Amino acid sequence: MGIITLTTDFGTGSPYVAAMKGVILSIDPGATIVDITHDIAAQDVREGAIVLADVAERFPAETIHVAVVDPGVGTDRAILYVRIGSQQYVCPDNGLLSRLTSRTPPSKVIRVTNAEFFLGEVSPTFHGRDIMAPVAAHLCGGLDPEQLGSPVETWSELDWPEVRLKSDRIEGEVLRIDSFGNLVTNITADMLEGRLTDGRVCIVCNIYETWGIYATYADQLPGMFIALIGSTGHLELAVVSDDAASRLGIPLGAPVSVSWESGDIGS
Amino acid sequence: MGIITLTTDFGTGSPYVAAMKGVILSIDPGATIVDITHDIAAQDVREGAIVLADVAERFPAETIHVAVVDPGVGTDRAILYVRIGSQQYVCPDNGLLSRLTSRTPPSKVIRVTNAEFFLGEVSPTFHGRDIMAPVAAHLCGGLDPEQLGSPVETWSELDWPEVRLKSDRIEGEVLRIDSFGNLVTNITADMLEGRLTDGRVCIVCNIYETWGIYATYADQLPGMFIALIGSTGHLELAVVSDDAASRLGIPLGAPVSVSWESGDIGS
Amino acid sequence: MGIITLTTDFGTGSPYVAAMKGVILSIDPGATIVDITHDIAAQDVREGAIVLADVAERFPAETIHVAVVDPGVGTDRAILYVRIGSQQYVCPDNGLLSRLTSRTPPSKVIRVTNAEFFLGEVSPTFHGRDIMAPVAAHLCGGLDPEQLGSPVETWSELDWPEVRLKSDRIEGEVLRIDSFGNLVTNITADMLEGRLTDGRVCIVCNIYETWGIYATYADQLPGMFIALIGSTGHLELAVVSDDAASRLGIPLGAPVSVSWESGDIGS
Repeated sequence: MGIITLTTDFGTGSPYVAAMKGVILSIDPGATIVDITHDIAAQDVREGAIVLADVAERFPAETIHVAVVDPGVGTDRAILYVRIGSQQYVCPDNGLLSRLTSRTPPSKVIRVTNAEFFLGEVSPTFHGRDIMAPVAAHLCGGLDPEQLGSPVETWSELDWPEVRLKSDRIEGEVLRIDSFGNLVTNITADMLEGRLTDGRVCIVCNIYETWGIYATYADQLPGMFIALIGSTGHLELAVVSDDAASRLGIPLGAPVSVSWESGDIGS
Repeated sequence: MGIITLTTDFGTGSPYVAAMKGVILSIDPGATIVDITHDIAAQDVREGAIVLADVAERFPAETIHVAVVDPGVGTDRAILYVRIGSQQYVCPDNGLLSRLTSRTPPSKVIRVTNAEFFLGEVSPTFHGRDIMAPVAAHLCGGLDPEQLGSPVETWSELDWPEVRLKSDRIEGEVLRIDSFGNLVTNITADMLEGRLTDGRVCIVCNIYETWGIYATYADQLPGMFIALIGSTGHLELAVVSDDAASRLGIPLGAPVSVSWESGDIGS
Repeated sequence: MGIITLTTDFGTGSPYVAAMKGVILSIDPGATIVDITHDIAAQDVREGAIVLADVAERFPAETIHVAVVDPGVGTDRAILYVRIGSQQYVCPDNGLLSRLTSRTPPSKVIRVTNAEFFLGEVSPTFHGRDIMAPVAAHLCGGLDPEQLGSPVETWSELDWPEVRLKSDRIEGEVLRIDSFGNLVTNITADMLEGRLTDGRVCIVCNIYETWGIYATYADQLPGMFIALIGSTGHLELAVVSDDAASRLGIPLGAPVSVSWESGDIGS
């Protein structure tokens, strides 16, 4: 009766996703399967890592998250079982979990090698279906993860853009663009702690500037460019009732700065 | 073991949807979650209302429908629990249910205020995840809706275009365009009662005209512009084996008239 | 506790899909419903047949696959219950199963006529919701398929392009383009048996040529045009880390030939 989530770059509607579900249900017919998303840009491990960090911990303890953004499929890159907090993950060792692990170190990392829990025939181009799906289904059915292989001490990490906390400003960037075109930055509410209600704060992104941080979108008029703290706890830039990314032509990675008229930032 | 459906404008594949599912399953792991659609146009409450009216009543009695098209999130707009017939709804008070309530008055409307059933921390930008999802999960687990807050007597309605029943004609409009490009009007089979087999009926939409009402698409040749009664009981205009909306350039709201060569329409 | 899958051309996010799920759960609330895909091109029976052949047999025995790509809805085309191997299918008689049946003859084909298992009111434009969904739900709940109607001896087939096995070459075509833009051909690994590691093999598609068959995408550098055996056991053409179909302008049906410098092909 466990839960397995799927995060892939196969595209919504891809029969490859359905094949994974068929494999899972063939091994554990009682598994509850939830799609996190299949719309990660093709081979964009970084986007997959951000989505997992935003969503995975909303699920019940012991949920098994299978993530397949896997440009190295069929090479000697490892497949990992990882426990972070109360959640479990099965994915290629390519940095997909590195945004989660940068917040919370994993309590267990096992290199999955025991072919007893794979499909009988493994295609070198689809380990999601032939290795990760069956492994997740066996875990869901009660398999002890120690049986999957041996612990490892190192794994792949991605470089995440650092937020620079300076005396008079915070410098970050646009980390994710959501489906409404809102610009989610890598600057968190924690970094702004104690200053959210300060009307003299100025946020600049590319050539666009806005003053103050609002509580929600509808606090300003349609068409206004505003800043707010979004639902994942990050500073977010939005155009009210519109798509900020396309309206303003702001891409992923665009620089974002937060500055105050005077004073310095508390740690 | 109850059923919760989700209808949002987050976009298929949005991790925001997955976050709601994680919250629901954390509270009621046995809930069956069904996506109605996440492809409502951004902030298009009207489209959400039409889809709910078309689909919700196909579900088993006691299903809980959560609808999040919520441009006013974080403002003082209410969140409602509503019972209409045998179905239950949790959504913002912005007219999302007004097409359903125009057919069947609700038997219970409660303003949801009891934060005991919300997540501990509520983001002002995502009440779908932090209020509506947990409330639905608690209802699914057996919570008495009376515990959510107090009954209210008024709620938001949208203006729906009226169908004009005249002596020699019926005037309506295109209410919805489906994924095949078929044009679903606000004229119902009931309004045409007794006249569906009358070959002398003429349907006009913008500059396009067709005679007679067919039973199904394949009753005419590919490329023909035809009228029929669609699967939701509405008069529908289609181009056989093609996309009528884009082929003919007919938008939402385009006027549709039905007329007869002679005689007047029964009530 | 059975499994029902859905394959349609309604488009992901279509409320028509949700209506079918509502109908199924109203009859069998314990059914597990899995989407195979709803993104079959409108009325493209051929694509539906390919997807079913690629995926259906990954599901547990006794799974009921409902496929609705149904340009003839409401005409006198039959609706069939079919058993192929351990899987069950409910779909219009238009060739949707013909790629599966070309591999394995069906062990049972019944024309579904017993309206006792349909919805009370059947729209001539939506048999997916009003006939196929309820029939599948009743089967899932234990209905003997013999009760649906009488066996038939003939059914619709599609013409599938034949692979020509010649003395010095194999000639096939592009059968499917996946969501990554990889070109899946109708040439199977079986046909190449014993020659997969032969470096002197030449694969030509339109004006593009590549030598050798690789094990997986990452065996060559980004931008390289390569051949490999894909995850469904078919010869596949890909551009590493890119979308071969759009990069090279290769459409469905494009000719693919495999030849060897010398020698002839084993049977």
